[in-house]
Amino acid sequence: MKAKVHVTLKAGVLDPQGKAVHHALEALGFDGVQGVRQGKYIELDIAETDPVKARPAVEEMCRKLLANTVIENFAIDFEG
Amino acid sequence: MKAKVHVTLKAGVLDPQGKAVHHALEALGFDGVQGVRQGKYIELDIAETDPVKARPAVEEMCRKLLANTVIENFAIDFEG
Repeated sequence: MKAKVHVTLKAGVLDPQGKAVHHALEALGFDGVQGVRQGKYIELDIAETDPVKARPAVEEMCRKLLANTVIENFAIDFEG
Repeated sequence: MKAKVHVTLKAGVLDPQGKAVHHALEALGFDGVQGVRQGKYIELDIAETDPVKARPAVEEMCRKLLANTVIENFAIDFEG
């Protein structure tokens, strides 16, 4: 089964990477972009096939390694 | 409206970052992870409110800046 993890900066946390992308888009002539936030997207192939059983382990992975929960949120979806 | 862009490595392209995450998860004692692929997740706040009208512009942004289409795929979703 696939676990799809999104790690995004919490609201209020500065995002210099997103800001750089925003400036670059403007420099390329793309108007109408009001803001950019950049996060991480991680796909895990896991042996467990039951999302209910898999969720606690994947949440633990997020808390221990994938996300810095002081400044980042994470969201988990399962597929397949 | 929000445009949510996922940029992922194409199949067959080596992903050292994902491999590092995989090793780290194993070192932390997480069994049952068979593979890890890491990508980027970008949220764009755009002025356009019609997804049909917005898509060509966002695709252009992906091709010109957000994704390296030689080695990466991108997917776009709209929300709000």
